[in-house]
Amino acid sequence: MTELAKMHCQARQGEADRLPKSETHRWLAELPRWELSADGHSIVRNFRFPDFLTAVAFVNVLAATAEAENHHPDLELGYGRCSVRFNTHDVGGLSLNDFICAAKTDALYAASGANRE
Amino acid sequence: MTELAKMHCQARQGEADRLPKSETHRWLAELPRWELSADGHSIVRNFRFPDFLTAVAFVNVLAATAEAENHHPDLELGYGRCSVRFNTHDVGGLSLNDFICAAKTDALYAASGANRE
Repeated sequence: MTELAKMHCQARQGEADRLPKSETHRWLAELPRWELSADGHSIVRNFRFPDFLTAVAFVNVLAATAEAENHHPDLELGYGRCSVRFNTHDVGGLSLNDFICAAKTDALYAASGANRE
Repeated sequence: MTELAKMHCQARQGEADRLPKSETHRWLAELPRWELSADGHSIVRNFRFPDFLTAVAFVNVLAATAEAENHHPDLELGYGRCSVRFNTHDVGGLSLNDFICAAKTDALYAASGANRE
């Protein structure tokens, strides 16, 4: 597991916490299953599940982590699938918090019975 | 509450269960907060919540209903919001099942502490 998953989000993000492109790509290299959005303002990963309720269960564990870190994803949830998107509204793009939460999301999925990879 | 909310989904939907336009508009008139998608293949409603976990809680009760009816929505979930979309894959558009589940979704929201309308 990447060290990112053990870190915690920083509160009070401001413009100065917006990651430059070089750092974005450095952290993305640690999270090979996440993709940068076309506008470069968010990162997204699509997760697969055996059915609807298993996807909902994953949303619940992810929600608990998001609440603990006070950093919340945008989710697209359907039968057997959930896409998870992180960005940092307060910096108008990506901060380290997004990569920390993405790594925690990967760890939750890897540890869950829902993992179908 | 519309009578729709008391009905139950029919299994084994086929092409013949796809609603004609006139029926779609008749049922939509009973669900004034739902909108027809531009392609006419789905109906959607945006729900508001006070925070992230309340939106997730709503997804949980909705998921239980969806599972009981074996008819599952597509959801877009974020901080304080959830959009709910129904369509019937097996008919390539809308069936009565979509309006039944939309009415049940309205009833759940109206009955929940999450209701902010």
